[in-house]
Amino acid sequence: MKILILNGPNLNLLGQREPEIYGRTTLAQIEETTRQRAVRLGATIDFRQTNSEGQLIAWIQSARGNFDALILNAAAYTHTSVALRDAIAASQIPTVEVHLSNIHARESFRHRSLIAGVCLGQIAGFGVNSYLLAIEAVVNSKAEK
Amino acid sequence: MKILILNGPNLNLLGQREPEIYGRTTLAQIEETTRQRAVRLGATIDFRQTNSEGQLIAWIQSARGNFDALILNAAAYTHTSVALRDAIAASQIPTVEVHLSNIHARESFRHRSLIAGVCLGQIAGFGVNSYLLAIEAVVNSKAEK
Amino acid sequence: MKILILNGPNLNLLGQREPEIYGRTTLAQIEETTRQRAVRLGATIDFRQTNSEGQLIAWIQSARGNFDALILNAAAYTHTSVALRDAIAASQIPTVEVHLSNIHARESFRHRSLIAGVCLGQIAGFGVNSYLLAIEAVVNSKAEK
Amino acid sequence: MKILILNGPNLNLLGQREPEIYGRTTLAQIEETTRQRAVRLGATIDFRQTNSEGQLIAWIQSARGNFDALILNAAAYTHTSVALRDAIAASQIPTVEVHLSNIHARESFRHRSLIAGVCLGQIAGFGVNSYLLAIEAVVNSKAEK
Amino acid sequence: MKILILNGPNLNLLGQREPEIYGRTTLAQIEETTRQRAVRLGATIDFRQTNSEGQLIAWIQSARGNFDALILNAAAYTHTSVALRDAIAASQIPTVEVHLSNIHARESFRHRSLIAGVCLGQIAGFGVNSYLLAIEAVVNSKAEK
Amino acid sequence: MKILILNGPNLNLLGQREPEIYGRTTLAQIEETTRQRAVRLGATIDFRQTNSEGQLIAWIQSARGNFDALILNAAAYTHTSVALRDAIAASQIPTVEVHLSNIHARESFRHRSLIAGVCLGQIAGFGVNSYLLAIEAVVNSKAEK
Amino acid sequence: MKILILNGPNLNLLGQREPEIYGRTTLAQIEETTRQRAVRLGATIDFRQTNSEGQLIAWIQSARGNFDALILNAAAYTHTSVALRDAIAASQIPTVEVHLSNIHARESFRHRSLIAGVCLGQIAGFGVNSYLLAIEAVVNSKAEK
Amino acid sequence: MKILILNGPNLNLLGQREPEIYGRTTLAQIEETTRQRAVRLGATIDFRQTNSEGQLIAWIQSARGNFDALILNAAAYTHTSVALRDAIAASQIPTVEVHLSNIHARESFRHRSLIAGVCLGQIAGFGVNSYLLAIEAVVNSKAEK
Amino acid sequence: MKILILNGPNLNLLGQREPEIYGRTTLAQIEETTRQRAVRLGATIDFRQTNSEGQLIAWIQSARGNFDALILNAAAYTHTSVALRDAIAASQIPTVEVHLSNIHARESFRHRSLIAGVCLGQIAGFGVNSYLLAIEAVVNSKAEK
Amino acid sequence: MKILILNGPNLNLLGQREPEIYGRTTLAQIEETTRQRAVRLGATIDFRQTNSEGQLIAWIQSARGNFDALILNAAAYTHTSVALRDAIAASQIPTVEVHLSNIHARESFRHRSLIAGVCLGQIAGFGVNSYLLAIEAVVNSKAEK
Amino acid sequence: MKILILNGPNLNLLGQREPEIYGRTTLAQIEETTRQRAVRLGATIDFRQTNSEGQLIAWIQSARGNFDALILNAAAYTHTSVALRDAIAASQIPTVEVHLSNIHARESFRHRSLIAGVCLGQIAGFGVNSYLLAIEAVVNSKAEK
Amino acid sequence: MKILILNGPNLNLLGQREPEIYGRTTLAQIEETTRQRAVRLGATIDFRQTNSEGQLIAWIQSARGNFDALILNAAAYTHTSVALRDAIAASQIPTVEVHLSNIHARESFRHRSLIAGVCLGQIAGFGVNSYLLAIEAVVNSKAEK
Repeated sequence: MKILILNGPNLNLLGQREPEIYGRTTLAQIEETTRQRAVRLGATIDFRQTNSEGQLIAWIQSARGNFDALILNAAAYTHTSVALRDAIAASQIPTVEVHLSNIHARESFRHRSLIAGVCLGQIAGFGVNSYLLAIEAVVNSKAEK
Repeated sequence: MKILILNGPNLNLLGQREPEIYGRTTLAQIEETTRQRAVRLGATIDFRQTNSEGQLIAWIQSARGNFDALILNAAAYTHTSVALRDAIAASQIPTVEVHLSNIHARESFRHRSLIAGVCLGQIAGFGVNSYLLAIEAVVNSKAEK
Repeated sequence: MKILILNGPNLNLLGQREPEIYGRTTLAQIEETTRQRAVRLGATIDFRQTNSEGQLIAWIQSARGNFDALILNAAAYTHTSVALRDAIAASQIPTVEVHLSNIHARESFRHRSLIAGVCLGQIAGFGVNSYLLAIEAVVNSKAEK
Repeated sequence: MKILILNGPNLNLLGQREPEIYGRTTLAQIEETTRQRAVRLGATIDFRQTNSEGQLIAWIQSARGNFDALILNAAAYTHTSVALRDAIAASQIPTVEVHLSNIHARESFRHRSLIAGVCLGQIAGFGVNSYLLAIEAVVNSKAEK
Repeated sequence: MKILILNGPNLNLLGQREPEIYGRTTLAQIEETTRQRAVRLGATIDFRQTNSEGQLIAWIQSARGNFDALILNAAAYTHTSVALRDAIAASQIPTVEVHLSNIHARESFRHRSLIAGVCLGQIAGFGVNSYLLAIEAVVNSKAEK
Repeated sequence: MKILILNGPNLNLLGQREPEIYGRTTLAQIEETTRQRAVRLGATIDFRQTNSEGQLIAWIQSARGNFDALILNAAAYTHTSVALRDAIAASQIPTVEVHLSNIHARESFRHRSLIAGVCLGQIAGFGVNSYLLAIEAVVNSKAEK
Repeated sequence: MKILILNGPNLNLLGQREPEIYGRTTLAQIEETTRQRAVRLGATIDFRQTNSEGQLIAWIQSARGNFDALILNAAAYTHTSVALRDAIAASQIPTVEVHLSNIHARESFRHRSLIAGVCLGQIAGFGVNSYLLAIEAVVNSKAEK
Repeated sequence: MKILILNGPNLNLLGQREPEIYGRTTLAQIEETTRQRAVRLGATIDFRQTNSEGQLIAWIQSARGNFDALILNAAAYTHTSVALRDAIAASQIPTVEVHLSNIHARESFRHRSLIAGVCLGQIAGFGVNSYLLAIEAVVNSKAEK
Repeated sequence: MKILILNGPNLNLLGQREPEIYGRTTLAQIEETTRQRAVRLGATIDFRQTNSEGQLIAWIQSARGNFDALILNAAAYTHTSVALRDAIAASQIPTVEVHLSNIHARESFRHRSLIAGVCLGQIAGFGVNSYLLAIEAVVNSKAEK
Repeated sequence: MKILILNGPNLNLLGQREPEIYGRTTLAQIEETTRQRAVRLGATIDFRQTNSEGQLIAWIQSARGNFDALILNAAAYTHTSVALRDAIAASQIPTVEVHLSNIHARESFRHRSLIAGVCLGQIAGFGVNSYLLAIEAVVNSKAEK
Repeated sequence: MKILILNGPNLNLLGQREPEIYGRTTLAQIEETTRQRAVRLGATIDFRQTNSEGQLIAWIQSARGNFDALILNAAAYTHTSVALRDAIAASQIPTVEVHLSNIHARESFRHRSLIAGVCLGQIAGFGVNSYLLAIEAVVNSKAEK
Repeated sequence: MKILILNGPNLNLLGQREPEIYGRTTLAQIEETTRQRAVRLGATIDFRQTNSEGQLIAWIQSARGNFDALILNAAAYTHTSVALRDAIAASQIPTVEVHLSNIHARESFRHRSLIAGVCLGQIAGFGVNSYLLAIEAVVNSKAEK
């Protein structure tokens, strides 16, 4: 099973940026931890980050036929991008929306997700565990089919 | 580790009720699957269901000192109950909000959670897996401390 | 034909409570009048009242397989309970929403019904006749099938 | 007892128009069924249809002194016409608002009725039975006075 | 003079629950302090707590004929319960709404009270003193009549 | 100076209809009083009423070149008709909006006028005097040019 | 008959201020024209201006017993002052709200009048004529009693 | 191919009315230009105008079975008429909504179209060309089937 | 203990103004009753009224260092004045908001208090008793420190 | 005549992506069909697609002086990009907004176009024909000047 | 160059009032610092403070002909006063709106400025530097003309 | 002191684009003027422009450790980008938001800034001077520390 994991704007700063909200783990550490969990579950991951909305769209599009599932932390674009929503819907790949922080406990403009409506589900608030849980979710989801 | 798992109104009907939304698994099956996963992770669960808002509040209150974590599928009360929010905040027990269906992909009155703001995080959309992921989340969360 | 008739909060006070809005008929008189009409139409009724949202949910759930139709005056819960909506949808029993007063002519927070969307229809404003008309509606509705 | 029954825009298309919403009965059949029920209850009806808001207003105005009750299916004008509301209020004739479909289960712009506030009550969702129930309602209402 | 004092959900946790908001006094202490003040003013109190909306409604209904006044801290139900509003209106007993904290200085969903419109008045923000002031209010109010 | 005075839906019922809001004067009496005032000010009037929005539009259109000013009591259409607004803008005739009652002191849906933005001004709340003042307004307005 | 005419903030600048909206007439000229019209109708006026909300309130309060009617151009305070509304309601003097410009054709925050609900009526859009019409309105209104 | 082209309120004034918005072409010229284009594309048109909402509804209803397509410039009724929406849905004829001006660049109350949801599509902003493009659209649309 | 009691616009009219809302007691009587209660509780009061927002601000500012507590009935300014809110916050004196009437049971624009967020608490609906209760509240509040 | 045709995010997936909404035609086919129509009308086109908002802006900017018209299908950015609006306004090139689907008949967040206000007009709902009609619109529009 | 600098309600408390928001500088120190900067730039200032909305209006009005520019820190009135907006528009003096704190980072009711729309620009968030920057702004602005 | 000055979408068109709003100065001229002012104040600047949201984010991220302050004219992204807000918060560099035009005096969708809440302050409306004032602001701000 091949999983594409995409990270949106400012996630490259993890560990430095506002640790009281996002914790001290860096994105590289998340990638490493995530990879280990995937391997343990018999999956491989491709882990990427970009600050560009257009790049995220391109990566989501390219997932079709190349990956079995998509895990997406769209960060700030979660709340503003209809284009990401359309890309996910078009890709027709099972997608899990993840967030490090509990977006429902922050500013009200972070409560609305424009992409949740076209995802399998949402996991938010567990730090790096959000990614690990998402991997379990997509692996399990496939196993059930 | 002791985990209290609470299920709100109409979840006793699972398996019969609108299977195109909630799937065909019964609540008893969810309990069984959940218990096995908990055992595997070295935890025990207490799994309950009620249609009564007041009963849910009482159970949440009683969790303090008796359980290490709370997993709550408040179902319809998620969207209407400030009292559940206050009970969780008062209990000071780490709480994970779970939903079988992806509430963000349903009617707009199901997008707002009144309890999410006082939970660790939210897991929605993975059927019975939502519960399993939540158990992992609370076990991991404790392990990290 | 067996009809379950459920009455929500404060309806036990009928006849005493704000007669300029609800009239002087008591709930017992409504039950009696309603029963006579049902008998005349070849149906039997089970007529209950509770102030508890959870009890209403339980009764609606138990209707499945035991009753052919449900007549529900959810009173104040009409405007605040997503849980009742879910119970009706799950019960899959034809349901008629009734109100003694014309809720559309009262305070604006009474104009919205959270349960109407999953009912056959709504009858509001005719006092005890709202119940009698609802019985005719469900009896006719069954006769047509 | 003389009852005026008025039907608003597009109801002349009944039976052809969107049968999955409105059923296959024609307006002529509704008139016939309605008349029989009225006769059985000792009443006569005058049954009319128009696509014109102004014509509806004129008919409502003329009801005063000539009819004992008004049954009004204002169709789309229900949601947009303050003028109909004013006509009903001015006519001072007991009026029942009816709808074939359950307007509360359709698009949100059909949930609001501008005329309900000046009617005796509302009956919605029972197809042709909505009219029959309305006749019962006005006949009973008169009998009680 | 007999006063019924009702306390809503989670107030049984007072003293433990979020002391930075609600203070360290327990509900038992509030009851004791309140009783002393009542006695001093020539009144007796009946002091109860429940987490159940339906129980609150039942207690309010039973007040009629048995008590001269009602003091109600509906806690979270203040903001979500139309049923409590209807119960107060139906009971026709002079009612004072109290809150320990200043609800107008907290989250915006706590600013709106669904019950205030049918009460004599509202006292919020004075901790246990809110109850004592409410007793004075109802005793004075009766003395003036 | 020639003035067209147009009256919208239900104004033909004046004197009978809700006299506590609109007074006991009939439309014929208003026409007579209005004509006398116009004559005294050296103007003639053409005074018409219709319940039809389309007829009002046609009359407004025909005013161009035939009248020097328009006085319009659009009644309920004031609040719902963009078409009347467009007709006034297209006619390019100085128009005064009048209302017998003070629309700003009634239901909130009567506070908004869709036509006021293209009129010279608005006179509301003075009964038949609203018409007399409007005649003065248009006569004075012309005298000043 | 004695009429108090009050002018609110910035009206002392009339003739200089934004003549494309308010015209070139000064407040002194309005006072003079207004006085002449009043005299012709057998009335006297007291004509004042202030930029102070508190002063306007004091003048409205003092009108009671000293004047038969109040004409109020509250200017910007029209849209922001609940205190003026309360003063008018308390004074119990028949009050006409006037505006030089058509407030309904300007910025949307000028469409709402907080004081209109407690006035006899509103006259807006006729420049100095708004005052003259208001004098007629109050003189006629008194004559009719 | 037979096309019905309907024009709503005030469009009979084209060429005179606000030419800075609608241009100087008259409705007769639009009809002529439109007819020539239709002929060139092998279609015939029936071109009508009315100020009456009821008449528009009647014409739309009559299109069924008599025309292959409908082109509708509902003008002001676009923004206020649910009845036109229902008529189009009931007629089941492919309908193109046209506007001379770009309604999305005008007052905000012209941005919402109540009829767009039941049309094939919308063409707005090209003056008489909006009609010509609509003819191409319906001719092409049929050719493709 | 020294208490400053400030009264806002139109409260000087108490006893005359709308007695069905505010009662028949004059402000002088409230001052007298209030003073007696203060004396009994070992406090002195300074009781003032003004219609001027600026004067209220000045008095609140001057309270610092001169008074131990502030009781404020801001009347209409409660709902419109951010400046009063800032003055209270800046004065850092414990402040109790009082209202004679139950503002939560009146027009919706009276439900929102702009000053409540910076006060200790709010007492509304008890007529002159609102003041007496406020004195108890501040005296008790100080005693507890 | 030179026309720049720009396509926004996810349009490169046409033909694969959600064919029930967007049809089975690929973007390459749309380009080919569009080019043929342009040639037939004596125009040349430059047809491009990008998922990047910044690239779209750059292309729109570069159009100035190099193209006579712009046809823009901004896809999801239609609803979220003020930057595209500014680019179009700054380019001062006549622009036509096109959409394959009828955006007014889809989710409500697709009803609002942030760019329509600075375009000549909008064509939506005709599949590939939307592009062909837009070419006609800009060619005709130029011919008329 | 002569500059009028006006300070609104509660700014006289600067240095004492909420120093975590407004800093420890007093208004006298701001005046002194501001005067020095003005002198250095060849300008003189007149620096005033008042808590009265009416006084601010009077000062703004008097600026015309006496000052070349206005710098206004309207404090709380920024968010509630249409009258100040009208005074600035009427004065026709170039005006700069200043704020010590960043109003856009505070409570949402401070985000809206009713006066910004008639000012040259807004400078917010720089403490006393906001005033110094405003002086530069108006001096530069004049130099450029 | 090193200052990074970033310019967002369409600002490269300055001088050509809508000069009635943005003036005739080009971005190169702004850079030159800005550099001179910086030098005069002992600072150096790095001045950049991009149409890409992702590029702006990257530049803001890279500022950390390399610059002492950030001046940001995010243009249209001001109103739509949560990602820029997050980048500024993460960079922890003192940031001043600047705008050439007075955004508060333009279309309402330009009144809201998503980034202002994490900036030191905002300067809007002074053309190129907005940049010069921002330089002074950050230099002064540093000097004070």
